[in-house]
Amino acid sequence: MNSYQLFFEAPCDQKSIIESLQKEWQEGSSGYYDLPQKAASLIERLESETFPSFSQIALFGIGGSSLGTKAIDTFLRCKHTAKEILYFENPTPLGIKSNFEKLRSDEALFILISKSGTTIETIAQFKATIAHCDLALQNNPRILVISDENSPLHDFAKTFNLRFYPIPANVGGRFSVLSSVGIVPLYLAGYPVRDIVDGAALFLQKFFAGNAPHLAQKACFYAKNHTSVPMNVLLSYADILMHFNEWYVQLWGESLGKKDRRGNRIGLTPIAHRGPVDQHSFLQLLMEGPLDKSVTFIKIENFQEDLTIPEISLPHLEKTDFVNGLTFNRLINEECMATLEAVQSVGVPVDLITLEKITPQNIGELIIYYELLTSATASLLGINAYDQPGVELGKQILKKRLP
Amino acid sequence: MNSYQLFFEAPCDQKSIIESLQKEWQEGSSGYYDLPQKAASLIERLESETFPSFSQIALFGIGGSSLGTKAIDTFLRCKHTAKEILYFENPTPLGIKSNFEKLRSDEALFILISKSGTTIETIAQFKATIAHCDLALQNNPRILVISDENSPLHDFAKTFNLRFYPIPANVGGRFSVLSSVGIVPLYLAGYPVRDIVDGAALFLQKFFAGNAPHLAQKACFYAKNHTSVPMNVLLSYADILMHFNEWYVQLWGESLGKKDRRGNRIGLTPIAHRGPVDQHSFLQLLMEGPLDKSVTFIKIENFQEDLTIPEISLPHLEKTDFVNGLTFNRLINEECMATLEAVQSVGVPVDLITLEKITPQNIGELIIYYELLTSATASLLGINAYDQPGVELGKQILKKRLP
Repeated sequence: MNSYQLFFEAPCDQKSIIESLQKEWQEGSSGYYDLPQKAASLIERLESETFPSFSQIALFGIGGSSLGTKAIDTFLRCKHTAKEILYFENPTPLGIKSNFEKLRSDEALFILISKSGTTIETIAQFKATIAHCDLALQNNPRILVISDENSPLHDFAKTFNLRFYPIPANVGGRFSVLSSVGIVPLYLAGYPVRDIVDGAALFLQKFFAGNAPHLAQKACFYAKNHTSVPMNVLLSYADILMHFNEWYVQLWGESLGKKDRRGNRIGLTPIAHRGPVDQHSFLQLLMEGPLDKSVTFIKIENFQEDLTIPEISLPHLEKTDFVNGLTFNRLINEECMATLEAVQSVGVPVDLITLEKITPQNIGELIIYYELLTSATASLLGINAYDQPGVELGKQILKKRLP
Repeated sequence: MNSYQLFFEAPCDQKSIIESLQKEWQEGSSGYYDLPQKAASLIERLESETFPSFSQIALFGIGGSSLGTKAIDTFLRCKHTAKEILYFENPTPLGIKSNFEKLRSDEALFILISKSGTTIETIAQFKATIAHCDLALQNNPRILVISDENSPLHDFAKTFNLRFYPIPANVGGRFSVLSSVGIVPLYLAGYPVRDIVDGAALFLQKFFAGNAPHLAQKACFYAKNHTSVPMNVLLSYADILMHFNEWYVQLWGESLGKKDRRGNRIGLTPIAHRGPVDQHSFLQLLMEGPLDKSVTFIKIENFQEDLTIPEISLPHLEKTDFVNGLTFNRLINEECMATLEAVQSVGVPVDLITLEKITPQNIGELIIYYELLTSATASLLGINAYDQPGVELGKQILKKRLP
């Protein structure tokens, strides 16, 4: 279980927020609330299936179809023996070429993920892979397809008799990591997906029982101050949270950047950094720039790695000896707390999330925590967290630009 | 040479901006203006020195001591045969452990970089490496030290008779990549540093000759609108610009987040993303959120990789066939232009930087371009781009927290 501390005042009617999210759940306006419960049957299905032997997963997906999986994969990899996942994500020529160099097509499982079924970057890379690997489609047990039921990609899977895993229609990409989108690749890579889901389920329960009041308070603070504090910085003191940071940016930015019912442009801007390294980039701006940002610090209490700064005193560098004998674990967490204190002292609203250890439960909890926080904030701002009408224009222009 | 297009109006007195930067140069308030010229003698020194044979560089540095090198390394690596550089940067226990696994201490060159000479994260990791590799210090030709003249680290280098390369005192970390900080490791890795420097020198000349008016115009726009458009998004359509993005964030955030002479908190917030992947994260917010951001698009005209989307039509996925036959190079650049057009159509101020190819000259130019843009913007905002008084408090608190 993670701990959550707010260092700002946030008066809030928790009950009405819980009720409004409960209403979304009941009405089915977003289906992510059901995912922790629904995951059980998906995992049972996966356990009952047989797959050709494989040593590598080639995952074709972008945005909501890859970021959540990547976040969990990067976080847990240091503690679990998991099969390599190659992400065919950003369709840059050098990235694809580099993936092709690593791809062992006879030993790979190909997982094709697109909610709409026609994501151009994903399908284009899959076509290039068909050509590159001379991949047969018909009845190929190495190809798995994950998409909305009855999407073009589902029809494609039926045509070639490929294994298919549906995404619930009312679960958007950025809220989908606990659906087939994340569960299938993470299970196949070898991660304990039940534990991830359990962590999420437990927190979901806790929130709806009113036992996580800090979440509603934080949402109230963000919503109340959305014009004066329009930026929310996530500062994660662990490189293994790097892709969690990216997942957060998508979740927050795409959910909360919206026109409200009256057509007003509303938006909270997510910014994600890593500590302590980005203290050397971003701290000056936090300390002396405009007070237009809140900062959430994330630290991992115990990395279960006891690498220590040796008791070496170097001539002329004695000034650095005050950290001798500390573990690096302690050093970065002390830096986290010192930075929190410094930033708070100039009036920046800060809060702290502490993960006790690197466990599947803790990352599962962190994910549902952020999804609920997003829903609560959107509900208070009077905007729809679950659509993304603004991204269509770019797609139309792209089509027009091409022959 | 890169091309620069502004898609917004920006009336501007270019002459006075050039004069004010010229004054900084003459007065020596920042020394980065001299670096392209000074690099020649540093490169000559490097060429005249002999180094023990090595196959790997272990670079100890954080923030301004590593980001610029990393930016250029990541950008050029695909086109050059260069020795591996291991970055001992963020002092997380898992990161250090993973570096130790890759480190071949008998074949490595150790480069220790700290401007102040006592950067805690850098020295702590170097101490851990001394212990881990049983590294001898006295007269060790494998250890190179880069720091300010007469810093504690310089004294340390003298004590052990280690090779030392000074950083000019009036060049701050984030402006130092064309000094010994970047030139030494990049030269030793095998990159054509003269070409990098030439690209920078040529643009510097051009700017001061008044032949890059777009730069002053952009600075004027940013300064004039700094309260209504406080965020500057860099959207780079190439994964190889990933660390350039990080370098930009430090340069922009740490230089422009300052109190002005009257004590007012001034600041422009840098945000960096990659295209097309982050269209799936951030575009919705740009399109429908508040108009509080400008966006700079960077694209690479020619990756010199002709990977093509094959002419495969998949049943039910015919909707995606409109990109068949295109190179991925063209696809991502067309996405760049389509997104630019979409974002511009809702009133977001946008501009476009085009790198013709992946060359050392082009990245050198891009670096000095951003440094000059930062100086020009700071000058218009009436703040000092070159100090970072706000970062001291956190360091003091850290010391107090520890025994």
